[in-house]
Amino acid sequence: MTTAPPSSSLPPPATPPVDTQEGIALAAPRSFAHATGFVYDARMMMHATLADDGHPEQPQRIARIFEMLQRHGCIDRMVRIPAREALRHEVESVHQPQLWDRFESIVKLPVDQLKAYSNDLEISSSLYLNMHSTYCARLACGSVMDMCSAVAAGRVRNGIAIVRPPGHHAEPDSGTGFCLYNNVAVAVQHLLDRPPGAADRVQRVLILDWDVHHGNGTQRAFWNDPRVLYVSLHRYENGTFYPGTHYGHYDQVGGPQALGTSVNVPWPCAGMNDADYLHAFQRCIMPIAYEFSPDLVIISAGFDAAVGDILGGCLVSPTGYAHMTHQLASLARGKLVVALEGGYTLDAIASSALAVTQTLLGDPLPPWPTGLSCSMAGADTVARVVRAQAPYWACMRQSLDYPPAPKEAGVATWATDELYLDARAARLWANHQMMPLPAVGDALLRNQALCTPSTMMPGTQTLLVFVHDMGTWHIGDPDDPQQPALFLADAADDMIQWAHTRGFACLDLCTTQSVSVRMLRNGERDKALPRPDAKPVKTTLEAQALYIWDHVCALSPAQQIVFLGFGSGCDALMHIIANRVVQDRVKAVVQVMGLQPIPLVPKQRQELKAWYLEHSLVLCPCDHPLYTWNEQQASGKRLGRVQRALESNPMQVLLRAKDALDTLLGAPTAPPTATPAPPAPVVTSAS
Amino acid sequence: MTTAPPSSSLPPPATPPVDTQEGIALAAPRSFAHATGFVYDARMMMHATLADDGHPEQPQRIARIFEMLQRHGCIDRMVRIPAREALRHEVESVHQPQLWDRFESIVKLPVDQLKAYSNDLEISSSLYLNMHSTYCARLACGSVMDMCSAVAAGRVRNGIAIVRPPGHHAEPDSGTGFCLYNNVAVAVQHLLDRPPGAADRVQRVLILDWDVHHGNGTQRAFWNDPRVLYVSLHRYENGTFYPGTHYGHYDQVGGPQALGTSVNVPWPCAGMNDADYLHAFQRCIMPIAYEFSPDLVIISAGFDAAVGDILGGCLVSPTGYAHMTHQLASLARGKLVVALEGGYTLDAIASSALAVTQTLLGDPLPPWPTGLSCSMAGADTVARVVRAQAPYWACMRQSLDYPPAPKEAGVATWATDELYLDARAARLWANHQMMPLPAVGDALLRNQALCTPSTMMPGTQTLLVFVHDMGTWHIGDPDDPQQPALFLADAADDMIQWAHTRGFACLDLCTTQSVSVRMLRNGERDKALPRPDAKPVKTTLEAQALYIWDHVCALSPAQQIVFLGFGSGCDALMHIIANRVVQDRVKAVVQVMGLQPIPLVPKQRQELKAWYLEHSLVLCPCDHPLYTWNEQQASGKRLGRVQRALESNPMQVLLRAKDALDTLLGAPTAPPTATPAPPAPVVTSAS
Repeated sequence: MTTAPPSSSLPPPATPPVDTQEGIALAAPRSFAHATGFVYDARMMMHATLADDGHPEQPQRIARIFEMLQRHGCIDRMVRIPAREALRHEVESVHQPQLWDRFESIVKLPVDQLKAYSNDLEISSSLYLNMHSTYCARLACGSVMDMCSAVAAGRVRNGIAIVRPPGHHAEPDSGTGFCLYNNVAVAVQHLLDRPPGAADRVQRVLILDWDVHHGNGTQRAFWNDPRVLYVSLHRYENGTFYPGTHYGHYDQVGGPQALGTSVNVPWPCAGMNDADYLHAFQRCIMPIAYEFSPDLVIISAGFDAAVGDILGGCLVSPTGYAHMTHQLASLARGKLVVALEGGYTLDAIASSALAVTQTLLGDPLPPWPTGLSCSMAGADTVARVVRAQAPYWACMRQSLDYPPAPKEAGVATWATDELYLDARAARLWANHQMMPLPAVGDALLRNQALCTPSTMMPGTQTLLVFVHDMGTWHIGDPDDPQQPALFLADAADDMIQWAHTRGFACLDLCTTQSVSVRMLRNGERDKALPRPDAKPVKTTLEAQALYIWDHVCALSPAQQIVFLGFGSGCDALMHIIANRVVQDRVKAVVQVMGLQPIPLVPKQRQELKAWYLEHSLVLCPCDHPLYTWNEQQASGKRLGRVQRALESNPMQVLLRAKDALDTLLGAPTAPPTATPAPPAPVVTSAS
Repeated sequence: MTTAPPSSSLPPPATPPVDTQEGIALAAPRSFAHATGFVYDARMMMHATLADDGHPEQPQRIARIFEMLQRHGCIDRMVRIPAREALRHEVESVHQPQLWDRFESIVKLPVDQLKAYSNDLEISSSLYLNMHSTYCARLACGSVMDMCSAVAAGRVRNGIAIVRPPGHHAEPDSGTGFCLYNNVAVAVQHLLDRPPGAADRVQRVLILDWDVHHGNGTQRAFWNDPRVLYVSLHRYENGTFYPGTHYGHYDQVGGPQALGTSVNVPWPCAGMNDADYLHAFQRCIMPIAYEFSPDLVIISAGFDAAVGDILGGCLVSPTGYAHMTHQLASLARGKLVVALEGGYTLDAIASSALAVTQTLLGDPLPPWPTGLSCSMAGADTVARVVRAQAPYWACMRQSLDYPPAPKEAGVATWATDELYLDARAARLWANHQMMPLPAVGDALLRNQALCTPSTMMPGTQTLLVFVHDMGTWHIGDPDDPQQPALFLADAADDMIQWAHTRGFACLDLCTTQSVSVRMLRNGERDKALPRPDAKPVKTTLEAQALYIWDHVCALSPAQQIVFLGFGSGCDALMHIIANRVVQDRVKAVVQVMGLQPIPLVPKQRQELKAWYLEHSLVLCPCDHPLYTWNEQQASGKRLGRVQRALESNPMQVLLRAKDALDTLLGAPTAPPTATPAPPAPVVTSAS
């Protein structure tokens, strides 16, 4: 994106432009510098679906918000900023010219054709159009632009732009997800492009997008621009929630020139509440925002995470929105613009917008409810964001539990994961005389392969091939004085012990493909090193898995082989299954999932598929994404026999693999143990 | 403390009381509910020192603040709340009756006697008095009470009490540190004691004390009261900074009925700046405050951490104070009272108070400066606070880097420290055939003792006894792709290797007396378990040290023994020196300090002291508290030969012990190495 040409050189725009400066000067003279501005214009209700299908992005959305503000006396205390259409060259500072032309030609089609086209568009791009759509989109965009300009220049203190259609899904080359043009992105680009000395010129902008969907368009527009910090909290769910790509994951941190200026808080499920949002704000968003120190803050304010929203499924209350607004108001001398994005339940968006507006006006915040606490999913997500952003923000490194690395060289160091593997090797040698096998692949991504001596001994009946992630680091339960501050919980040794009691030989491949590796990979800046992606980790583990198959399993005298996968080990075992002939010897495959997607049934050959369906079982934690939100999304996929465990902790589920293996092998039932057997899990889906 | 009796049953007070409710009703009728209140009364300047010594707690403090607020138009925008004297029974809700009587009798002494008494008092208790002191103290206390009542009842939105003498050092049974009565504590107790249904009754109060000194009096008043969350940020410096006790340390978390309701952020040195304070607010204070959810917030606002304060030595700017105020204003519906405590440089306190008042009035915050970052000392302190408070606050557990412990039982766990010791034992066995010695003492506090076979072999010349803390956990340097997320840095193996090259036998005693143990200890709630203190850890290590002396060193054929202590190992070695006869065999003692106090030269016997001074050397990191603030505080102590290293990282200093040991032993200089020798450290103090 380059600086827009001076307007004198532009062709006359299609609609009569309103001079930005004057338009505002009329509504908000100098004396309004402490006031809160608003834009509302009923003309933006003209954009509506021709299909008469009760589309959630309905015209009444903005009217209802306006009425609520009026009823509570807010409008009387605010300064109106007139709506105005964005000009073509302004829109094109973010979007490609073809997009403007395409939309303009569509909306001029005869109604029947337009209706048909819009139907197609809605299916392909979640976007509807009528004859007024581009006019409304220009109004929405221009209004956000003028509001941002007024706040940036100090003509009003802060403001809210009650506009539609929304903008944050609109990418430079396409309008999608109810969005034609990216209102906020165009407004920000405009202010960044203002000439030096202009009153409304800005140098650094924070866009905080609390719409329940990831603002892919806004992130794309400023992906590689270090002047714009884009922060989004949204449902992600392994990339299955709209817009349905990996682009909103916490490891998406910005382009090579702007690492750390995309901050994604990707909720793994529905139901996130005020405490989850507050935790994200306190733990990472506000510290990063302070370190970035913007001179303008824009909230891409979808209210579809609000309690009661028909699409969002989250639980943010007006109180939550007010507190987030208050925190953001501490930045940029309080220069804060709220621009409406999504939000589809009229009562919910109106009461949310009211709370935000009252906060803009300086009213006392509603009190924070007692007894509300952040969910496990929320805390875990935020912790991952902190680690992903730590390479780029000093505040994220400082707020980690342990001090940053000292600068001085010369002191030897050991990584936690390395210590764990060393200690585990010593332990398994002492307990089971397990011996190391050679490691292959990238030395940085440490795998550890160990096997019992019986693996290669004649007479061995059964060989368990156990490929698994290392356990999880936890902080101790404060009510349990036996627990230390930080510890690793891992059921892998228990599985080895179980195999020992069954008389199985055991080949154990443990991978430290954990947080530390991910952070390390993110930490590699794009200097001399090529930018890595998640590929090498997987490839290394798959290569190691093939190696142990070829060099150990294939040579083992064991009569039957049993596969047990855990976490990323599941994919590694599927890699063996897909690339080697295993059906003759492998009698059982049990895959224990963490929160990652379930591997698909191999479909290269029909008989391989049939074999897999007969001999395999997938165990899922009870809160696996398969079950949390949209159950039908997962159905119809070819996942094999999937069982939902009663437990949410994957380590607990791993312990259930004992029974599953016994079942598949037709072995005698487990010997009586001290603890009673758990209730049988429920089979939920089968291909 | 019990509810105060209804005032009708009280004896008539000594001074004519002003009815609290009416007094305010006059000044602030209902229409002031959105206004900011202030108390200022020049009569409080009558408290002054008789000694004419330019005492820093000078009358002009409050006048200068008032003038600054007036000059900037704040006073015109505020509502005045009249000053009034606190009544005896009100003061006695916090203080013992003897205190009131004692002060009243002193101030009625003839001037000469009063002057002499005041001089004595200033030496013993840092408190001066004149004939007006109790009158002013009653005014200050009553004014803070009325301001808090007005805000609690919603008669004004928030307010500032510009009062003196200050109060936060005054404990229930004594006035100290420029404080007679504890203004804030009395005000809070009064509101807590109000009858149900009273407009100004409160249930939970947050007192945020940002005075640079710990508010020992306030903490004491509510130590065991779960209704009051007392949070203090202050210089601590191993308990040497005023008030000079352990009571302001981060492990002081409240009494058994109120664990977690004292939150201390004890800065280890001077020079803390806005970013350090912001980090503490974001990382622990605001999350805890939200979880506590007070219905009134009071800032014990000393401004002696301000840039330029003659006593404080810190660097908090008006911007910093404004931002902290804004954050606190999000709590309790914005019911926020600012009560002046310390602060001794007139310009600094006036501009700080102005920034705070403008924030109370809702003015935009000054922009946060770019490029300001939290210090290593600040980040480390806050991390310790987080861990100390984690047992009592869900938000602190959730914001740790690793997820909380899963509730389900049955999954095996390994503590990081345990893993480290296991891995280390395996490594030192592989490299040096070091073997384990029995451990003694508390099994929870794991020590690991290892020795080389040569320890007990005839012909061994020298035995190195190395007692040390385990290394430090760090997060990786993001610019170094070789570093993982979390790792341990430890120079202990390097010392073992060095001893090996010197031909020394080696006895290594490593202790995990680390953060995890401390947190564990704090985590033991006062239910069935007795409340632990720091004693057991030290005792265990000392017992283990004596054991290895008696059972190994005393029996070793080695001709000379060398002691090397690191961290808490220093005290353990001193315990051997003090309790066994070691002078004949121990030829050198090198103590490498972290940030803990330097052990004192043993003085039980004169010849022991002489021996120690001749054969020992203490190495300190360059930022050891001995050097950071008050150099003369350390002088005159009997610390032996202390060398200040060039490095701040204790692990780096440990590596310097090699040269120190060579020097003490008169050994040949170190063989040439790849790195040039560092400049000789400077001897700074000798007993």
